[in-house]
Amino acid sequence: MQEGAPVVLGLDVGGSSVKHLLASARASLDTPPKPLDRGRHATPKSSPVEGLAAIASSLRGDADLERVVLSIPGLVDEAAGVVVRSTNIPALDGRPLGAQLSAELGIPVDVINDGHAAAVAEASWGAGAGVDDVFVLALGTGIAGAHVAHGQVVPGAHGSAGELGHITIEPEGSICSCGRRGCLETIIGAPALRRAWVAVGGTGGPEGLLAAHSAGDAAATVIVERASSALAEAILTLCALVDPGCIVIGGGLAQAPHQLVTLAERYVGERASFHRVPPIVPATLGEWAGANGTVLTALRRR
Amino acid sequence: MQEGAPVVLGLDVGGSSVKHLLASARASLDTPPKPLDRGRHATPKSSPVEGLAAIASSLRGDADLERVVLSIPGLVDEAAGVVVRSTNIPALDGRPLGAQLSAELGIPVDVINDGHAAAVAEASWGAGAGVDDVFVLALGTGIAGAHVAHGQVVPGAHGSAGELGHITIEPEGSICSCGRRGCLETIIGAPALRRAWVAVGGTGGPEGLLAAHSAGDAAATVIVERASSALAEAILTLCALVDPGCIVIGGGLAQAPHQLVTLAERYVGERASFHRVPPIVPATLGEWAGANGTVLTALRRR
Repeated sequence: MQEGAPVVLGLDVGGSSVKHLLASARASLDTPPKPLDRGRHATPKSSPVEGLAAIASSLRGDADLERVVLSIPGLVDEAAGVVVRSTNIPALDGRPLGAQLSAELGIPVDVINDGHAAAVAEASWGAGAGVDDVFVLALGTGIAGAHVAHGQVVPGAHGSAGELGHITIEPEGSICSCGRRGCLETIIGAPALRRAWVAVGGTGGPEGLLAAHSAGDAAATVIVERASSALAEAILTLCALVDPGCIVIGGGLAQAPHQLVTLAERYVGERASFHRVPPIVPATLGEWAGANGTVLTALRRR
Repeated sequence: MQEGAPVVLGLDVGGSSVKHLLASARASLDTPPKPLDRGRHATPKSSPVEGLAAIASSLRGDADLERVVLSIPGLVDEAAGVVVRSTNIPALDGRPLGAQLSAELGIPVDVINDGHAAAVAEASWGAGAGVDDVFVLALGTGIAGAHVAHGQVVPGAHGSAGELGHITIEPEGSICSCGRRGCLETIIGAPALRRAWVAVGGTGGPEGLLAAHSAGDAAATVIVERASSALAEAILTLCALVDPGCIVIGGGLAQAPHQLVTLAERYVGERASFHRVPPIVPATLGEWAGANGTVLTALRRR
C-alpha cells in the first residue's frame, strides 16, 4: 500500500466474526477493488463499540482512512446510523453506532444492514452486474431478499421490503416462525429441510439432503423438488409485483451444484404466464459479499 | 385565463373518451391545480394521431402551450414515447405517438401508461399525499397496481411491476385469464364477482352485489367477505415484499361505501405478523386521477 494514499474500510460484522476489507479510496466503482488488506477478527460482543473502534484503529495504521462502513445483522436505521435491534449482538441494540465510532475515529462512519450490503455487492459487482433492477435472495436458516435498483436497495417505507421468505405458498401449511401458515420459509428454510430430511431417516442436515439429492437419492429428490417448487411460486409472485431484471440467489443452501436454483428456474419457466421471467442465477461473491457491499457503499459515499 | 401565460395540457386517453385538463405551467406541485379548462371528447379511434393533435390544437387556442402529456391504456415505452400495445385503441399500436404529436404541435409531448398516471396523481395529490412510498391499486375488471416512491412509479425492469391481480391466492383455484390458477383476479375481479353473484341468483352485476351487501344480504356477504379476504392476503404479500407506507385503493369496485377496502383492511390487521401494516385508504381523485397524473407529469417535466 502506498503510504498516505486515501483508503476506505468495510467491516462486515457477523454474529461470530468481523470480516474486513481495506481498499483504495480511488478504486473504480465498476468492479470489486483489489483489497489492500482483508481478514477477520472475533466479534467483540460484550463491548462492541469499543471493540469495533479498536479493530478499525488497528487496521488504519498509518493509512489516510477516509471513511468506514459497517454492516450489522439486524434492523438498522441507516439514515441515523443507529442499530435498532440486532439478534446476534444484543449489546448493540439501540446504539448510535455510526456517531459513536465517528467520534472515536474522527471520520465519517456509516452503518447498514448486512443483507442490504450483500445485495448491493451482488447486484453491482457479482452475479447481477450490468443489470439495473436486481433482486438478491439468500437461502439459509431464514430467507432474506432485497430489491436493488440502479445500485441502491429499494428499502420500502419501514426498511423491511424484500421479505420473500414470508410469502404464503401453502395457505393450509405449517406454522411459520412469523406466526402465519405456509410461508416459503416453512418449506425451504434450513430448519424445514432438516426436519423433512430427518423424517425420512436422512442425516447430515440440509447439506446432507442436498448431497443425497446430487447422488440421486429418491427421498431427497422429493424434498428438494418440493422446496424448489415453492421457491418457484414465490419467484413468480416476485416477478408479478417487482419485475426484476435479474434474480440472484445465494446463501448456504444455494452453493454449487446450485440444485435449488436450477430447479426453481426450470419450474418458473414452465409455469410463467404473462410474467417477464428474468435470468435466475447463483450468487458469485460468496461469504465476502457483505464485506464487498460495505466497501462499495464507502466508495459511493466519499 | 390570462392570455399568453404559459400552460400545460394533460390528456387522459381512454377507450371511449379523452379527458382533458389545462393548467397553468406555474401551478404548484404540492396540490392539484385549479383547472383552467377541463372536459372530454370522444376518442378518435380510426386516425388517433391526427385526432389527438386536433384536440390539443383546439384546446391550445391562443395560450402559450408548453407541454402535453398523454396517458394511454396499454403498454407504453415511456422513454421513447411509443405505444407498444393498446387493447382499446389498436390503431395506436407501435406508433411513436410522442414524436408524431410533438412534430405536429412544435412542443414536447410525453406518453405514459394510464395506470401509472392515475397512480402518481393519487400518490402525490390524492389519498397518498405526504407519504413517500405509496402503492396504488385499482379494482375493476382487472386489478392494476403501481408502487410510487418519492412521486415516481417504480416500473421494474420491463415496466410491468405492480401486478397484484396475478398473485396466487388459491393454488387449486379457478383458471385465470393469465392461464394460471387462483390469482387474486379470479376471486375479486369484476367478472368473478359477477359470476359468483349470478350463481346465487343475484342481479345487477358487481354493483348489484355490493349494494346487496350494504343492505345486509346474506349471500352477498359471503361473496364480498371472500373477495375481501383474498385481497387482504395479497396485501400481506405486498407488505412483505414492497413495504409501502400507504395503500390507496380505487377503481369501480372501491367506490363508497368502500366495503371491499374496509373489510380487507380489517382482515390485514387481524392476520399480520411481522408485517408493518400501513394505512389502507380509498382513492380520492375518482375518474379524474389519470388526467391529474398527466398534468402532474407535465408540470414536473417542464
